[in-house]
Formats: sequence, structure tokens, C-alpha cells
Amino acid sequence: MSDDKHIKIISTAVIKRLPRYYRYLGELLENDVVRISSKELSVRMGVTASQIRQDLNNFGGFGQQGYGYNVEYLFSEIAKILGLEKTYNIIIVGAGNLGQALANYIDFEKRGFVIKGIFDVNPRLLGISVRGIEIQDIDNMEECVRNTHVDIAVLTLPKQKAPKIANDLAEWGIKGIWNFAPIDLQISHESVTVENVHLSESLMTLSYRIKDKM
Amino acid sequence: MSDDKHIKIISTAVIKRLPRYYRYLGELLENDVVRISSKELSVRMGVTASQIRQDLNNFGGFGQQGYGYNVEYLFSEIAKILGLEKTYNIIIVGAGNLGQALANYIDFEKRGFVIKGIFDVNPRLLGISVRGIEIQDIDNMEECVRNTHVDIAVLTLPKQKAPKIANDLAEWGIKGIWNFAPIDLQISHESVTVENVHLSESLMTLSYRIKDKM
Repeated sequence: MSDDKHIKIISTAVIKRLPRYYRYLGELLENDVVRISSKELSVRMGVTASQIRQDLNNFGGFGQQGYGYNVEYLFSEIAKILGLEKTYNIIIVGAGNLGQALANYIDFEKRGFVIKGIFDVNPRLLGISVRGIEIQDIDNMEECVRNTHVDIAVLTLPKQKAPKIANDLAEWGIKGIWNFAPIDLQISHESVTVENVHLSESLMTLSYRIKDKM
Repeated sequence: MSDDKHIKIISTAVIKRLPRYYRYLGELLENDVVRISSKELSVRMGVTASQIRQDLNNFGGFGQQGYGYNVEYLFSEIAKILGLEKTYNIIIVGAGNLGQALANYIDFEKRGFVIKGIFDVNPRLLGISVRGIEIQDIDNMEECVRNTHVDIAVLTLPKQKAPKIANDLAEWGIKGIWNFAPIDLQISHESVTVENVHLSESLMTLSYRIKDKM
């Protein structure tokens, strides 16, 4: 029941919850937990056991009544659904603090996101190495994208520069953009998927929620 | 119609969309746009004009038929709803690349989030200044939180350390936690609001969406 046909009908709402299941299952694995019931998992995750059963039944279930879920199997199946069994070549465009922070995040590499280049326009950053990867001039980026088949570009750029560079990257064959610039990128190439991370919007949600305590 | 009573009944879905309106209106202001119709705004934002009218009618409308919205007024009203007319004292706990990136993000200060301290355990970071604020030993944190009435703590820490520190901060009177550690914080103090930013989950959503193009 976990063939590709089955996978295709999973709703967006469930997909959005999968990374969280993946994280919890990963922690269980780290703690050598082999099996877990939906009840126990629900207590840890703060969602109902029935929600968990429904979500996981969407892609085959994996659980047995009174027996629980096989943690490792479930973890690897969710990884497959999320595309984490594949390897993605990524570049980071913008080598400021945020770009360097993301480059230093070793967990990404563990999950198959391999950094192939870090680029910046600032001459003072050129030649500095981040986890063994030298920051290069942005003029070298096209060659890198085309020759090493870069799949994902991480944009940590000022918002004024992001649209032009995003469109160039799309032109050069990139498949996904993980955008941290505070702008909603409109890419003319339909084949490019954009995931926007608007950090300041998340902070505003927090201020909204605490403002009445001030 | 924009009194507090009215504000209280706005749905969560609308609230989640407000930071995005706020961002677009801020850009219009930067470009000296005084008025905008829901039609024009809808084209820019990629949502329907009817959605915009519905959302903004929730807190008084502000638009006049055939005349459009007063950009500055709408911007400032949304700022009030989001709590951005207040000032929040914040500290950053964890002065690695991500902590420094957030400290360097000047837009936060413009919106009323004022950094009162940056803390780390790493002795090599102590004394380094980020935008004029010296990184201090984490042992000084309690005094800072209590004496300067810190409202929000930004956690850029390893997941193992985050829960203990979050609970200490709650004990010392913090109101909100903006958490970047890859863990869902469970705070025993009900008065503390946590906003989690799980960056790697956002990257997994991207890999899910591009995996079939690989």
C-alpha cells in the first residue's frame, strides 16, 4: 500500500505535518526506541492519537493494532515521501551571517542537501572557507550551477537583488529556491519551486500573541 | 469600528496573513504610493481582491468604494493589531552565525524589537561586539532579564540546551520565546508564548515539492 500511486493522493495538510513526524521519529531512533504506539507518540507530539493514525494511514499505516509503529521503518518511509532519500546539490547565494549559518548547519548534509558553492559580491568575503567550501565571487555562479547540476539555491540576499538572481538561476536550470530575502519571488519559469522563509513575519506573529501582556 | 472589541474577533487565519499585508503596504509606502485599490493590491500579492476586501473588512475596512485604501493608515492600523506600535526588549541566546545574523537584522529594531543582550557559553565569543552589543557570558543572563525587563528571548541554541534555558527564562519573567532550536519547547509556565521556527522542516517541504523533477 505504499506504492507511488498511493503517495500521490496525500493532502497538503498531511504533507505539511510530515517533517514534524520525521523529526520526532528521528529523535526516537537516536534514543534507540524500536517501536512506539500512536498513544505514546501523541503524548510526545501534543496531537491526538487519532490524528496520528489518520495521518499515517494515508500512506499505508505501518502500525499494527496493539503493537505500535516500527520507528525505523516509518522514519525511512516518511523520508522517502519527503524526497530525503535523494541527494540535492545546493548553493548558497549571499555569504553573510545567515548564509554562513545555513552553510554550517550540518544536519542539512545528513539529509542529502550537499553544498556545492557559496557566493557573494562582497570582495572581503571571497576566499574565506565555510566548512571547507570557499566563498566565491558571484560571477562564478553560472558556471557552477550549469556544470555541477545544482538543484536548489538558498537565497540570503537583500530583497532588491533577489528577483534578478532568482530569474537567472531559473534560466540556468535550478529546480528549487529556498528564499530568505524579505520578498515574495515571482519566477517566470514554471518549473522552479520557491519556498519562502519570512523570518520577520514569524516574529510579528509572536508580538501579536504577547502584545496584550505588555 | 477598529476598537479593541472588534479586534478580538479576527480569526487566526486572517492574523497569519496580516504580516504579509504589512510587508506589501510597507513597500508601497517606500515607493510613495498613497492609495491603492483592492484590485491593484490583489495583483501585487497574488490573492483575490475579494479575499483582500474580506480580510481588511475584519478590522474596519479602511477602503472606500472606487477610492481604494489609504496606504499609510492601513499600514499603521495593521502595525497596531500586530503589536508593532509597542517596544519589545529582546535578548539573543546563542551567538553563533544564526544568532549574529538575527542580531544584525536591522529591520527588527525599526519595528520595535530592541536588543538588550547577546549571550553565549563559548569563551571565544565573549567580548565580541555585534552592532555595538557585546556578547556576554550566559551567567550574566538572569540579571539582564530581570533588570532590563526583557520581553522576548531568541533561542539559537543546540536542542539539548534549549529546554532548560527556556524554562529558566520563563521563571525570570520572559513573555515570549522565538525558538530556532530544532525542538518543540514545552514550557511549564503558561504565561510564556513560544513561536518555533523549524528551518529544516521548510527545506523538507521544498524537497517534497521538487523530488519528482530529480
